[in-house]
Amino acid sequence: MEKTIFQLLENKKFSEIKTIFLDMNPADIAACFSEIEKPNDLVLFRILPKELASEVFVEMDTEMQKDLITAFSDKELKEVMNDIYMDDAVDIIDEMPANVAKRILAQASAGDRKLINQLLAYPEDSAGSIMTTEFVDLKASMTVADAFERIRKVGTDKETIYTCYIIDSSRHLKGIVTAKDLMLSKSDVRLEDIMNENIIFAATLQNREEVVQLFDRYDLLALPVVDNENRLVGIITVDDAIDVLQEEISEDFEKMAAITPTDNDVPYLKTSVFEIFRSRILWLLILMVSATFTGMIITSFESSLASLTVLTAFMPMLMNTGGNSGSQSSVTIIRALSLGEIEFRDVLRVLWKETRVSVLCGACLAVLNFFKMWVFDILLLKTDGLTLMVALVVSATLFFTVLIAKVVGCALPIAAKKLGFDPAVMASPFITTIVDAISLTIYFFIAQAVLF
Amino acid sequence: MEKTIFQLLENKKFSEIKTIFLDMNPADIAACFSEIEKPNDLVLFRILPKELASEVFVEMDTEMQKDLITAFSDKELKEVMNDIYMDDAVDIIDEMPANVAKRILAQASAGDRKLINQLLAYPEDSAGSIMTTEFVDLKASMTVADAFERIRKVGTDKETIYTCYIIDSSRHLKGIVTAKDLMLSKSDVRLEDIMNENIIFAATLQNREEVVQLFDRYDLLALPVVDNENRLVGIITVDDAIDVLQEEISEDFEKMAAITPTDNDVPYLKTSVFEIFRSRILWLLILMVSATFTGMIITSFESSLASLTVLTAFMPMLMNTGGNSGSQSSVTIIRALSLGEIEFRDVLRVLWKETRVSVLCGACLAVLNFFKMWVFDILLLKTDGLTLMVALVVSATLFFTVLIAKVVGCALPIAAKKLGFDPAVMASPFITTIVDAISLTIYFFIAQAVLF
Repeated sequence: MEKTIFQLLENKKFSEIKTIFLDMNPADIAACFSEIEKPNDLVLFRILPKELASEVFVEMDTEMQKDLITAFSDKELKEVMNDIYMDDAVDIIDEMPANVAKRILAQASAGDRKLINQLLAYPEDSAGSIMTTEFVDLKASMTVADAFERIRKVGTDKETIYTCYIIDSSRHLKGIVTAKDLMLSKSDVRLEDIMNENIIFAATLQNREEVVQLFDRYDLLALPVVDNENRLVGIITVDDAIDVLQEEISEDFEKMAAITPTDNDVPYLKTSVFEIFRSRILWLLILMVSATFTGMIITSFESSLASLTVLTAFMPMLMNTGGNSGSQSSVTIIRALSLGEIEFRDVLRVLWKETRVSVLCGACLAVLNFFKMWVFDILLLKTDGLTLMVALVVSATLFFTVLIAKVVGCALPIAAKKLGFDPAVMASPFITTIVDAISLTIYFFIAQAVLF
Repeated sequence: MEKTIFQLLENKKFSEIKTIFLDMNPADIAACFSEIEKPNDLVLFRILPKELASEVFVEMDTEMQKDLITAFSDKELKEVMNDIYMDDAVDIIDEMPANVAKRILAQASAGDRKLINQLLAYPEDSAGSIMTTEFVDLKASMTVADAFERIRKVGTDKETIYTCYIIDSSRHLKGIVTAKDLMLSKSDVRLEDIMNENIIFAATLQNREEVVQLFDRYDLLALPVVDNENRLVGIITVDDAIDVLQEEISEDFEKMAAITPTDNDVPYLKTSVFEIFRSRILWLLILMVSATFTGMIITSFESSLASLTVLTAFMPMLMNTGGNSGSQSSVTIIRALSLGEIEFRDVLRVLWKETRVSVLCGACLAVLNFFKMWVFDILLLKTDGLTLMVALVVSATLFFTVLIAKVVGCALPIAAKKLGFDPAVMASPFITTIVDAISLTIYFFIAQAVLF
């Protein structure tokens, strides 16, 4: 498909491209645009019918949008911005450099400008920042027929008309009716008789991650957002909730891999090398420096190591198994926390469960490691200086390492959450560094007690 | 809220509990039930009005459902199963032990039983396994008024009526009309004039992860599913798509932390210790055994280590930094792959980008490490046997370790995907084990060349 378009573009067959675009979905057209070089992108954008053009524009990545806005005439900019939903407009302005944002605001109508500025004022992680002000509001005294009439009148540029909100004269949210309720009711029924008063809603300043969990838990298509006086100010639609979910998950993945979260609107291949470097170097440095501690532990046991160098050979295995055991627990707990499956009050139940799991894992690994060292390293490879006693020391250390790693791995994320940090930061890299130091200390202590 | 219910339950004030339940959301009532002991759960369940009871039942976890089904009379079971949507029924049957599943099927009507058996036959990860057969189908020749009439007639137990599907006499999917289109059109307009023929659809056997990406990409509320002769057989609704998204993400998290994916329907606190042990032990064992390789590398350089034990102290730092660098790259690439941002054909661009990032990271870390070792370890701590030359060896190794770790970290997930494996398995633990062996080999080779 894309190939055909590039061929047609080379031959300047614009009307044929237009025919192809008219059969395509906005998201797919936007994907095509990301492969097209300047200034052909503007030429192609101009052949799109107005409404489709705006839909395609919303689906483009930030860089592409910036390039187009810069190339737009004031009239074009106005047309595009007028046609898109308020929450999309706010997202776009939010991502643009100040001078471009100013130019967009200058082209908006006075009413829109006021709304956009209000929406821009909500903190980045709040429900307010992802809501749209475009929804259908109804009165409780209306009949189903009245409701249909109002939906027909105002509905065409409302982001969702499937959930309508019933408010009183001071805009307090009183109930909701779904389009399904309306379609399945007689036309003379009053809304107050069919509206649902048991409403799930969010507050403007509520954390957007919590808000997304509401969609998952209650299977919502849209969620009303109220201000601190309980007045309806906007709604969040399920498609935006899914976007937030994906962004939050990308952030969790990044934090768990010791990456400083980046701006997720920019795909990997379009992020600059320096930007990637910047997001990675900080944690690498912190973790490198904290490994100094592990090094100091080794240095302080250097004399034992010098007299029995065979001990060195099992350090990587002990540290890795400890790190892996710890990250298994921490990742499980981080995920359970983010799904709301466990809370702080469950900390003792979690610790007790992880302790039992770690005893099983530790015992299993220790026994198998002992036999592996006996048969493979001692009998088969006849490794220098390796005795059954050393195998016993390594296996015992392994057992305690797994035990401690799993307890630390489950406790730290819960503690982090309690202290108001993101539990995801307490994932593998952090746990590994702590567990390394602990496991080597155990190793050398047991070795010194038993072998010297 | 929950406290009040428990108090009322102790005093057997069932009608007051009923009043509270009537104001609550099914998902919240189900959460209450999970805290209530047998046989009170059955007593409470029986006080719920029939329709609410079925909605609550669907939201319960599998264990709770099993307990209730076992306690139900045949009549109760029939009522509950008749009231729930087909896809939920299939999910429940899928999770139940064979004897319970048989009992449920025995209570279903002949038509339902046939449909359920068809749905149960789709592979677990396919679009077919998450679709429902309940949707509104219309004919292209109908008018908007006809459409409304049909929706009113069949709509009450259809999972979504907001997207209606237009099919021909052999059930081929011809177009879609949304409830919005219908509500905003005049009643005598024919559907063929307003239907959208540019349809996003899935095939029954398509991977469900791909299907979820369609929801994200095209902001869908529902997605039609067609068989291999292009006949419409079902739809997938956005709430089920979000559930699948969460499940797939939990699986990715687990794979990345070296956990064998578990059944995600069971929350952490309800999973048995043995079940958790089983999901964790396999990878711990595999990774423990593969660390043997790293141990053998150390053994083969034992004589060098014995004569310069100070080298041992920097092994953990080198291995950790290598592991962290590698997992940063692998996690970034795994996420980009799962979001569809990169594909196999981008492999060279990714390699080139990661190489440049790793040169920046490696150089930065190496220089800082050199000065840290010089000032802190040599001048301040006066560590035994530590010279500037050793600091140089460690720093040079650090540079090459970061370089190789990042290249391996980005290449393995892409290779895994190309070979048909899940890239998520190529995350931190796996990369760490490989990078450990490589970085120690570099370390000892440079050390032997320079220091002896």
